[in-house]
Amino acid sequence: MARANAPLPPGGTIGILGGGQLGRMLTMAAATLGFKTCIFTDKPDSPARDVAGYVIEAGFDENRAVEDFIQRVDVATIEFENIPPGLIGKIAAHIPCHPDARALDVSNDRLAEKTFIRSLDIATADFQKIDTLDDLTKAQAALGGAGILKTRRMGYDGKGQVKLNAGDDAAKAWTVIGEAPAILEALVPFERELSAIIARGRDGQSRLYDICENRHENHILATTTLPAAISPEIAQNAAEIARKIADALGFIGILTVELFLEASPGGGTLKVNEIAPRVHNSGHWTIDAALTSQFEQHIRAITGWPLGAPDRLCDIEMTNLIGDDIEHWHMLAKDDTAKLHIYGKAHAAPGRKMGHITKLLKR
Amino acid sequence: MARANAPLPPGGTIGILGGGQLGRMLTMAAATLGFKTCIFTDKPDSPARDVAGYVIEAGFDENRAVEDFIQRVDVATIEFENIPPGLIGKIAAHIPCHPDARALDVSNDRLAEKTFIRSLDIATADFQKIDTLDDLTKAQAALGGAGILKTRRMGYDGKGQVKLNAGDDAAKAWTVIGEAPAILEALVPFERELSAIIARGRDGQSRLYDICENRHENHILATTTLPAAISPEIAQNAAEIARKIADALGFIGILTVELFLEASPGGGTLKVNEIAPRVHNSGHWTIDAALTSQFEQHIRAITGWPLGAPDRLCDIEMTNLIGDDIEHWHMLAKDDTAKLHIYGKAHAAPGRKMGHITKLLKR
Repeated sequence: MARANAPLPPGGTIGILGGGQLGRMLTMAAATLGFKTCIFTDKPDSPARDVAGYVIEAGFDENRAVEDFIQRVDVATIEFENIPPGLIGKIAAHIPCHPDARALDVSNDRLAEKTFIRSLDIATADFQKIDTLDDLTKAQAALGGAGILKTRRMGYDGKGQVKLNAGDDAAKAWTVIGEAPAILEALVPFERELSAIIARGRDGQSRLYDICENRHENHILATTTLPAAISPEIAQNAAEIARKIADALGFIGILTVELFLEASPGGGTLKVNEIAPRVHNSGHWTIDAALTSQFEQHIRAITGWPLGAPDRLCDIEMTNLIGDDIEHWHMLAKDDTAKLHIYGKAHAAPGRKMGHITKLLKR
Repeated sequence: MARANAPLPPGGTIGILGGGQLGRMLTMAAATLGFKTCIFTDKPDSPARDVAGYVIEAGFDENRAVEDFIQRVDVATIEFENIPPGLIGKIAAHIPCHPDARALDVSNDRLAEKTFIRSLDIATADFQKIDTLDDLTKAQAALGGAGILKTRRMGYDGKGQVKLNAGDDAAKAWTVIGEAPAILEALVPFERELSAIIARGRDGQSRLYDICENRHENHILATTTLPAAISPEIAQNAAEIARKIADALGFIGILTVELFLEASPGGGTLKVNEIAPRVHNSGHWTIDAALTSQFEQHIRAITGWPLGAPDRLCDIEMTNLIGDDIEHWHMLAKDDTAKLHIYGKAHAAPGRKMGHITKLLKR
């Protein structure tokens, strides 16, 4: 086991909760620094299992599996945030776990998240807490009729949310999200979607990647472009928001802050959409076009290593390969200016992230 | 199993004979393209096992293990050349194997290698075939007294060779190499050591990396520098030598040609030192500073994919971390201009390659 303040030497084992493509890319980054990885996943055939030294395939509530994980690993982390409540605490009683339970509690609950962000004097969309249909009816009126109804927990890629236009039946929307605790969020007429990816080390030092400009299709990230078409001031503000949130959480590892840039006469206003306490799809370009990838940077942060340089080497456009897109792998492989990444998933379902391609635009 | 002429789609399995750091880096490159890997190694705790989806740990002469390997993989390759004779033929009877038995037969035997290279009108050091002490005594005289006595087989990193100076006792040298079939090679008073790394695809197309300049210490590669301090003409000649050898062998995959540049009044003469039918230590810089790494390029070649762009992104100096060098990992991790690679080997023995660091010098 790692001593509390010494960096974990090569040869140590990183435990990762979750076995998706983020776990797969974290595992490869860990291996590059000489670390072993233990993946703990509750799904069969996870993309990370092809590259991990050890895989625990079991329910997150199976005590023996949790104990095996704790025994094997020197430091634990996550690759998705919807970890069952209590599991992080159980693990953290024995070994360092980054992010910690607090960061996950905040980011896993849209109400807690927005309340926390506003407590830092950072703007978000207006929102109302919804526990009953009556709450929803009142909130709809308060927000002028329209908004997005989002479950407080377990939402990602547009899951657990429904758009409410003026005049829409609140009761129907309430049924669609399963009458689960929720928030109603005001629509933000944004001009651009951005993300700020920050790494914060065990010593509190942080390093930021260049701000990413993102475009979603059907609620799923489609492309990330760098540099973002924003002014240096907006970029600076986005970076400061990310740093403020990471510092307030005492965050260790990679934290991603998704932002809306709202057009306004004064030059644009930033509102935080949500935070992801982990490496992020909009940071995949860093594998091919940053001195240190977000995956290596996260491993460095959680093991107490010095953070690497986040410098960007060229302009880029990252495009997700979703569902059937992956069938064009042979054509994509011919592009001399692009780096292809395929996640090794057995089946391409609609909306499923199968890989990505990073176009290196200018050097 | 792959059809003979169709490229292997993502999801297929690459079989690799050998589990060292080259196998480890090949495995990660294969995973990036969505391939699974099966490592077949006769050593325990091999560096590749931490990242491979499946590992067969058995003697290369164990039929059941060989059959398991053949069953599991779609295409086979190697990460070290001293494969037991016959094994490649046994595998290639069932699945494509690159490199093929001929390329290995040529590169595994210093006599066959030099004879083959000379048959292409490419210069090598002068050499004499040695089967007896009498052969050696005569050869020593023929080469003017000095030379390097090298076993024909199983030599790498200076193993299986002894330098013979004028006046040295031939009988003693003959004993040192175990009286094994050998060659006596004339000393080459070289100015620089170079390597040419070429990828040749299943369609016969080839792509070359920039010529590398190498420096050895104690017969082990210490540093690789790019660009090499050579004229464009020498670089062109080195590239043509590599292409000629790869074409003559009908080679598929990455082939490395090690060359001596001998100072001469006319501007320098190239002599082939040896060929390695595989990815090579002097190509490790390509992971961080080429559009396509040598590892990905090899995987592309053997699976019938289009070859990637070999373009170099910046000037580099790659330094091997040998033996105790690895103890400085924490200091090395602080260098913002360098990319650190650690192979995850449990013990640092003198002369053992534990990792490498690629310094990105200029962009």
